[in-house]
Amino acid sequence: MMNLVEALLTGDRLALSRLLTQVENGTQDGRFALNELFQHTGKAHLVGVTGAPGVGKSSLVNQLALHIRSHNNKTIAIIAVDPTSPFTGGAVLGDRVRMRNLAGDNGVFIRSMASRGTLGGLAHATSAMVQVFDAAGFDIILIETVGAGQAEVDIARLAHTTLVVDAPGMGDDIQAIKAGILEIADILVINKADRPGLENIEHALRGMLGMAHPTQRLFRHHGNFEIVEAASDVQGSTNHLWIPPIQKTIATDGTGIPELAESIFRHASYLESSGDWSLRERSRLESELDALIQDTLTQQFRSNLPAELYDKVLGHILERKLSPWEAVETLINGRLR
Amino acid sequence: MMNLVEALLTGDRLALSRLLTQVENGTQDGRFALNELFQHTGKAHLVGVTGAPGVGKSSLVNQLALHIRSHNNKTIAIIAVDPTSPFTGGAVLGDRVRMRNLAGDNGVFIRSMASRGTLGGLAHATSAMVQVFDAAGFDIILIETVGAGQAEVDIARLAHTTLVVDAPGMGDDIQAIKAGILEIADILVINKADRPGLENIEHALRGMLGMAHPTQRLFRHHGNFEIVEAASDVQGSTNHLWIPPIQKTIATDGTGIPELAESIFRHASYLESSGDWSLRERSRLESELDALIQDTLTQQFRSNLPAELYDKVLGHILERKLSPWEAVETLINGRLR
Repeated sequence: MMNLVEALLTGDRLALSRLLTQVENGTQDGRFALNELFQHTGKAHLVGVTGAPGVGKSSLVNQLALHIRSHNNKTIAIIAVDPTSPFTGGAVLGDRVRMRNLAGDNGVFIRSMASRGTLGGLAHATSAMVQVFDAAGFDIILIETVGAGQAEVDIARLAHTTLVVDAPGMGDDIQAIKAGILEIADILVINKADRPGLENIEHALRGMLGMAHPTQRLFRHHGNFEIVEAASDVQGSTNHLWIPPIQKTIATDGTGIPELAESIFRHASYLESSGDWSLRERSRLESELDALIQDTLTQQFRSNLPAELYDKVLGHILERKLSPWEAVETLINGRLR
Repeated sequence: MMNLVEALLTGDRLALSRLLTQVENGTQDGRFALNELFQHTGKAHLVGVTGAPGVGKSSLVNQLALHIRSHNNKTIAIIAVDPTSPFTGGAVLGDRVRMRNLAGDNGVFIRSMASRGTLGGLAHATSAMVQVFDAAGFDIILIETVGAGQAEVDIARLAHTTLVVDAPGMGDDIQAIKAGILEIADILVINKADRPGLENIEHALRGMLGMAHPTQRLFRHHGNFEIVEAASDVQGSTNHLWIPPIQKTIATDGTGIPELAESIFRHASYLESSGDWSLRERSRLESELDALIQDTLTQQFRSNLPAELYDKVLGHILERKLSPWEAVETLINGRLR
């Protein structure tokens, strides 16, 4: 395994591929490797791309990667989190169109990831894969999630910069569900901007960002949303404020992609100059530490707990002799032993 | 608080309402109440209703409740989990249409629930509210979730019977994302069945259920999916097999609602005769117990851990001197103290 880690650090793409598999499957070897790799992480710019199905996220990610590769000479890793059919075990969306455009470029590495059944498992596996790409020296890691559920939001929270992608004509119900993910947007993208309904969606998005009072603007400050009076604070100290811009794109022909890339780089500069970069890094690693503490405590507890005792207590719950709360008291503080 | 619990058990609707609020907010009083109420739970039939936005779940739930109230004399609680706008703090979908139809019927109680920001929080709060309704003696608890993300799937897993609702003309992308939630369907509903595209969607759903080989059928057995040869087992032992039926409805005019209600009751009978009812009950309460063990262990650990030590270790992680895994070793096994 150490050979793989060393090979990865020297740029070996086969080692990268193998380590990603280990880490995605949560093997012991994968965990050892993460342990070794961690000291080499913390340099990549993590960019999350999320939004409802059908808005064209894959094409957008494809075009972004192509543009950045040819204009900025940065290396790019793409993690595409696909919904998985429980029936086939494979990715529903099949081979990605973009793979054709980016194939042969050694500065791009694309990895599709299957959704995990367990809550939290997806975010955890994504986070681990991000660490591998980061240690391997990729400058930008694009994390694309399909969907608008809580799991997708949590994955996006890993990122330094989060793009929420929308498109005209997706229907009001879709709009409603998206309100929840607007919260995490650093940059709003209206893709398919040549379609009818552009004005409506732009108006709606500006409305959601604009809050109740037209003089108030929403902005993100040290990772949290705050509301300020537009007339005063916003204009005064633009260095330390970030108002999510709305970028219009047509991913299929590349319209608006250079401006979007520019916006992403501008956000990275903002994060660094405002101190938000390290705050986000701190909050991300704190979540990671907390999740690991929780897992470890639970595993240690369960492996020390006699299975008969657990079964007995569960039986009491099923018979309604013990409430789940009382059962936890019993198991953890040992009252019934 | 005990007065509220007693009042709830005698059918007091104001007490019900207040306890639901306590429980949704996770207050200490709410937890005490759940503890007391637990012995009175385990009787209700929990029915989950999920599916992508725009398929008409709310109207369907409304019509189902109306039908069951007027034909089966069962009391019904409805928990509607709405996506919440982070900007307004309120439910996006506003007042529900169905409230007008069901208002004034004391055998129906409708509660809208705001989505929580935290992963797992939504499923946890829903589970607690289900317990309150169950203890209050409601025969059927309909849990409606908006969306198709992991959180929605987890909420649906609480249910004895899960309806996955679809509609013609929702687009291919929406279909793709839905493959993941088909896994949990006990009953498939095609709502808006008067719309063009009915044949397509029916074909697609049958295809997803039918697997690769036309002689194989998918069925649910003891809570898990299995594949059998259609020619042999399926016809032989229908008592112990459940093949998810596809029900076509037009919720707006009530078409197909009686058949859907019948299907739900048939599923309840199947669960009881096959032994799946108690298996699902066991698995539900086991998840509940495990989540509670995890929370309690983590809370106890964190409250015993000096904040300075945690901060110091987190600092080492940020400086890449310690990996998160090494940090957990340090904190839990105390190596660095």
